[in-house]
Amino acid sequence: MHIGFLGLGNMGGPMARNLLKAGHTLTVFDPSPLATAALVELGARTTNGPAELARDGVAAIITMLPTAAHVKDVYLGAEGLLANVNRGVLLIDSSTIDPLSAREVAKAAAAQGNPMLDAPVSGGTGGAAAGTLTFMVGGTDSAFDHAQPLLAAMGKNIVHCGASGNGQVAKIANNMLLGISMVGVAEAMALGVSLGMDAKVLAGIINTSSGRCWSSEINNPFPGVLENAPASRGYSGGFGTDLMLKDLGLATEAARHAKQPVVLGAAAQQLYQTFSLQGYGGLDFSAIINLFRREA
Amino acid sequence: MHIGFLGLGNMGGPMARNLLKAGHTLTVFDPSPLATAALVELGARTTNGPAELARDGVAAIITMLPTAAHVKDVYLGAEGLLANVNRGVLLIDSSTIDPLSAREVAKAAAAQGNPMLDAPVSGGTGGAAAGTLTFMVGGTDSAFDHAQPLLAAMGKNIVHCGASGNGQVAKIANNMLLGISMVGVAEAMALGVSLGMDAKVLAGIINTSSGRCWSSEINNPFPGVLENAPASRGYSGGFGTDLMLKDLGLATEAARHAKQPVVLGAAAQQLYQTFSLQGYGGLDFSAIINLFRREA
Amino acid sequence: MHIGFLGLGNMGGPMARNLLKAGHTLTVFDPSPLATAALVELGARTTNGPAELARDGVAAIITMLPTAAHVKDVYLGAEGLLANVNRGVLLIDSSTIDPLSAREVAKAAAAQGNPMLDAPVSGGTGGAAAGTLTFMVGGTDSAFDHAQPLLAAMGKNIVHCGASGNGQVAKIANNMLLGISMVGVAEAMALGVSLGMDAKVLAGIINTSSGRCWSSEINNPFPGVLENAPASRGYSGGFGTDLMLKDLGLATEAARHAKQPVVLGAAAQQLYQTFSLQGYGGLDFSAIINLFRREA
Amino acid sequence: MHIGFLGLGNMGGPMARNLLKAGHTLTVFDPSPLATAALVELGARTTNGPAELARDGVAAIITMLPTAAHVKDVYLGAEGLLANVNRGVLLIDSSTIDPLSAREVAKAAAAQGNPMLDAPVSGGTGGAAAGTLTFMVGGTDSAFDHAQPLLAAMGKNIVHCGASGNGQVAKIANNMLLGISMVGVAEAMALGVSLGMDAKVLAGIINTSSGRCWSSEINNPFPGVLENAPASRGYSGGFGTDLMLKDLGLATEAARHAKQPVVLGAAAQQLYQTFSLQGYGGLDFSAIINLFRREA
Repeated sequence: MHIGFLGLGNMGGPMARNLLKAGHTLTVFDPSPLATAALVELGARTTNGPAELARDGVAAIITMLPTAAHVKDVYLGAEGLLANVNRGVLLIDSSTIDPLSAREVAKAAAAQGNPMLDAPVSGGTGGAAAGTLTFMVGGTDSAFDHAQPLLAAMGKNIVHCGASGNGQVAKIANNMLLGISMVGVAEAMALGVSLGMDAKVLAGIINTSSGRCWSSEINNPFPGVLENAPASRGYSGGFGTDLMLKDLGLATEAARHAKQPVVLGAAAQQLYQTFSLQGYGGLDFSAIINLFRREA
Repeated sequence: MHIGFLGLGNMGGPMARNLLKAGHTLTVFDPSPLATAALVELGARTTNGPAELARDGVAAIITMLPTAAHVKDVYLGAEGLLANVNRGVLLIDSSTIDPLSAREVAKAAAAQGNPMLDAPVSGGTGGAAAGTLTFMVGGTDSAFDHAQPLLAAMGKNIVHCGASGNGQVAKIANNMLLGISMVGVAEAMALGVSLGMDAKVLAGIINTSSGRCWSSEINNPFPGVLENAPASRGYSGGFGTDLMLKDLGLATEAARHAKQPVVLGAAAQQLYQTFSLQGYGGLDFSAIINLFRREA
Repeated sequence: MHIGFLGLGNMGGPMARNLLKAGHTLTVFDPSPLATAALVELGARTTNGPAELARDGVAAIITMLPTAAHVKDVYLGAEGLLANVNRGVLLIDSSTIDPLSAREVAKAAAAQGNPMLDAPVSGGTGGAAAGTLTFMVGGTDSAFDHAQPLLAAMGKNIVHCGASGNGQVAKIANNMLLGISMVGVAEAMALGVSLGMDAKVLAGIINTSSGRCWSSEINNPFPGVLENAPASRGYSGGFGTDLMLKDLGLATEAARHAKQPVVLGAAAQQLYQTFSLQGYGGLDFSAIINLFRREA
Repeated sequence: MHIGFLGLGNMGGPMARNLLKAGHTLTVFDPSPLATAALVELGARTTNGPAELARDGVAAIITMLPTAAHVKDVYLGAEGLLANVNRGVLLIDSSTIDPLSAREVAKAAAAQGNPMLDAPVSGGTGGAAAGTLTFMVGGTDSAFDHAQPLLAAMGKNIVHCGASGNGQVAKIANNMLLGISMVGVAEAMALGVSLGMDAKVLAGIINTSSGRCWSSEINNPFPGVLENAPASRGYSGGFGTDLMLKDLGLATEAARHAKQPVVLGAAAQQLYQTFSLQGYGGLDFSAIINLFRREA
C-alpha cells in the first residue's frame, strides 16, 4: 500500500522503517533533513510538507508528532492534510495528545469524508524498532479493520478502545496509573530497605503479594534488584522522567476538563516535576526513587 | 506439638482451628468466652490468662492481637508471657504491628532465652479459614526452621524476610504499595470512564499494559469489571477500608521514625481517612473509587 | 471618556455601571439581551458585536470574559477587536485567564499599535458593585498611567505588577496560596475541634500566632466563629468553590508550562474538585471544611 | 516562690534564667552538668534527679523536655515526680508533646491531688531569652490562675485554651497550619517569579490580598524580600525544618488517633521530610522553597 508518514523522530523513524520492511511504499516528511534522508536511503519518497504529501496519491497517512498543537497544525492548517487529501484516505494519528484535541481533529476529518483513528503507542523506542509496539486505537469499527494490517507491521498488540479519542484515553489512564505505581514502588522499596530489609527479598515478597505491579516486577526502581532494568545501569535508557511528566500533564488536564479528581495522579505529577527541576528529567522515570533515598 | 494460642478473633480463631485439624494439642486464651468456647468444643484446653497459658507446658506460643499495645502487654506485662514462660519455648507473634515494637519484644524474649518470630499474615479471613495464608516472617534462621511446620498448618506461603521485625517491614511496605495502587486504579478507571471508555475494555488494556497491578487484575474497583470482586457486590467482604487505614498508619509512622518520605503513602492514608469519615470504613478498600465518582 | 465595554455578567455588569456613574460614555456588548438592556436603561449605547463596538469611536475598551478562549476569540477573531479598532485605542482585559494567553493577545495588540493591559480583579461581585475591586495590572508604565483613572472608577486598589501578563501572574499566585491556606485552616480547625477545643478559642489563638492568615481571620470556615462569614450562613454567598477551582486550574496549568512544581497547589485543586464532584461547587470555598468533618 | 525546673536545654535554660531574674528561688535538674552549672552560677540549687527535686520543698515544678517518652518517664517513672511530690504542688509541662500523652499524665497527677497544666510555647529561643514567649495552656481555671504569674515571668501572651491537653492541641493545630502556609507561600512565590514577576512586588500584592499570612508577611521564604528574615541570611537561625517536622508528626499522629483527615498537613510533612533527607533539616523551615527553585 502507498502510505504517507509524517514525523520521523525517535519513534516515527523506526515505525516507518518497519512499514518499508513489510513491503509498503512510503512518502515521508519531517522538518529534519537528516531524519528524512535516513528513510529515503531505504527507499522512501520525500516531499516538502504535509500538503504535498497529502496529494501524492497515498491510500493512508500516519502521523507521529510531539504535541496537540503540532497535530492540529498538520491536520487543520491551511497547508495541512485535511485541506489537501482526497476523500476516503485513511488517517492515523499515533501521537500522544489529549483526547479532546484528538476528537476535534477526527471530527473535522470525518466531516469531509476521511475516516480517522487516534492510535497512540506504548513500548518505547525499543518496541518501535522491534515492531512490537502496543497500539491503543480509537475510531469506528470499519476504520479500525482497515488500519489493522498497517498497524500490525509496526506493533504486536492492536487494541480497539472504542470510539474516536478512546485510544488517547486508554493511553493516559494507563500511564497515569503507571506513574503512580512507580512512585508507590519507589516509596515502598526505599522504606523497606531503610527499615532493614534486603531489596531483593522485599521485591520478591511484593511480586508474589498484593503489591505486585509492572513497576515492581519489570522495572523495579531499586538498583540491583533487576539486572536489566534502568535502575541497574544508572537509570539510562527506558522511559524518560520528562516523558512521564508529559503524559501526567495530559492526564491531569483531561481530568480537569472532565471535572474528575485525580489526587494521586496530580501528586505524582508534582513529584516528577520536583525531580525534573533538580536536573534529572532525562533519567528513566524509575529514578524518582532517588527523591526518597539519602544521597550515597 | 503442644501449642499455646492467644487471640481467637476473626483471624486467630480459624488459624487455631487449623492447628487442631493438623493434630496439634492446643491451650488457648481469649477475653471473649464465646470465642474460647468455640475452640474448646473442638478439643482445645483453656486458661484464665497469658501467665497460666505460658506455664501450661507448651512448646510454642502463637499470638494474634489487634495492636502493638496489646502485644506489649501480653508479652511484657507482669502477668504476661515472658515473665512466665520456660526458656526455649518458641514465640510467634502474627499480629500486624510496627517493626520497632516487634523488635523490642523479640529482643526481650531473646534476652531470656526465648526465640521469637514476627509473622504477620496476608490473605484475610478467607485465607485464615482455608489455611492458605501468606506468612511474612522475621527472626533467626533456626527459629524460622523450627516454626515452619506450625505455620504450614495455617498457611501456604511461608517467607523468611530476614532478621527480627522484617516480617512487619515486608507487610507494611507491601500494604502501603497496595493502598497506593488501589487509589491509582480507582482514579484511572474513574477518569477513563468519565472520558467515555467502557470500564471492561479499559481494565483489559491496563491489565496487558504497564499499569497492570493486583488492584486492577484481581480486585478491580469498578463495579462489573470482575464478577467476583467486592466492587460487584456492593463492596462487601474483602479487606475493609479501616483495616487498610490501620496498615497505612503503621507504614507512615514507621517512615516517620526512619525519617523516610512516603508522599503518596501519606496521601493515600488521608484519602482512605476522608472516605472512612464519610461513614464507609467497613466497605472493602476498593470502594475508595466512590470518592472519585459522581453519585448515581 | 467614551469607553467600549464587553462582557456584562455578574462582574462586568456592575463594573460598567460604575463607569457610567463616574460620567463616562459607554458602548456595550453582551450576547445576553437582558444584560445589555440593563445597561442601556442607564444610558449606555449598544452594538451588535465586538467589531461594531471597536469601530464606534471609543478611546478605550474594557473586556470581562469567562475564559481565555473567549478572550482570544473577541480580540483575535476575524470579527474581533484587533481587526477593527483604531491604532492607539487602549485595551484592558479584566478577565482572569492564564498569563501565556494574556501575553499572546497583548503582543498582537502592541504589534498593531494598541497598548494593552491585563487587569484581573479580586473582590467579588460585592466589590464590583461597591467599586472597591483590587486591580492587578500587567503592561507598560504609560498604558498603566493612562488606565488608572478608568480603573479607579471601578476599584480601590490599582496595583501595577510589572510587564504584560503579570497581572494574571499575581492573581493566580495569590489565589493559589489562598486556596491552599483555606484548606490548611479547614484541616487545623477541624482537627483542633475534634481533639476537644472550642472553635472560637482556637481561631483566637491562631489569629494571634504564626498560623494566622486571611482565611482564618476574615473567612474562617468553621461555622459560628465569624458571624458575617459564609460559614455562618450555610456557606452561601462568597467566592464559589468552582471559581476557586478555575483559578487553581489556571495556576497549575501555568506551573506546568513553567516546569514549576506546585505540590500543595495541585493537592488543594484536587480536594476542591473532589468536593465539587459531591455536588457542592456552588458553596463558598470555605465549605471545603465539610470534607474534614463528620456529617452532623 | 520556690520552683523546681527540669530540662535546661535551648529553651528551658533561658526560661529558668527569667524565673531567677523575677526573684524566684529555683531548684533545677538536667542530665547535662554544663547546663546545670550555668544555672547554679546564677543562684539556682541543683539535685541529682526528679525524685530529689520533687522532695525539695518546691511549690511548683516546670518541665521542658524533648519528647512524650521523656515526659512520661519524668512524671510517671518509679523515680519520677508524681511518686515523690507533695499533694497540691502545681505541675506545669511546657514540652511540646501529643495531647493524648499530656492528658494521660495530667490525669495521673490530678488523681493524686496535683493540679497539672500543659503549657507548650511558641516564640523560639529568641522569645525564651527575651521572656516574650506565648504559652498555650490547658488545664483547670484555678490551676491556670495559679500559674499565670509564673508564666508571665517567662512570656508575654498567656492563653488559656481550655481543659487539659488543649494547650498541646492549640500548638499542633497552629503549627500544622503554619507548616502548610509556608509551603503555600513558597510555591506561590517560586511560581510567580518563574513566570516573570519581581519577588518584592509579588510579596507586596499577596500581603495586601487574600493570600496574606504570617509566612508571607513576617517570614517570607524568598531571599531578599524581607531583610531580617532567615531567607535573607542563608536560612540560618529561625525555626529549624526538623523542628517543624516534629510538630507536623505530632499533628498527623494526633489526627490519626482522632480519625481526622489532614490531607495538606500530611503532604506538607512529607515535603519537609523529603527536604530534610537531602540534608537541610537544620535550615529554617522557610528554606523549603528550595525544593521548588532551580539550583542557581
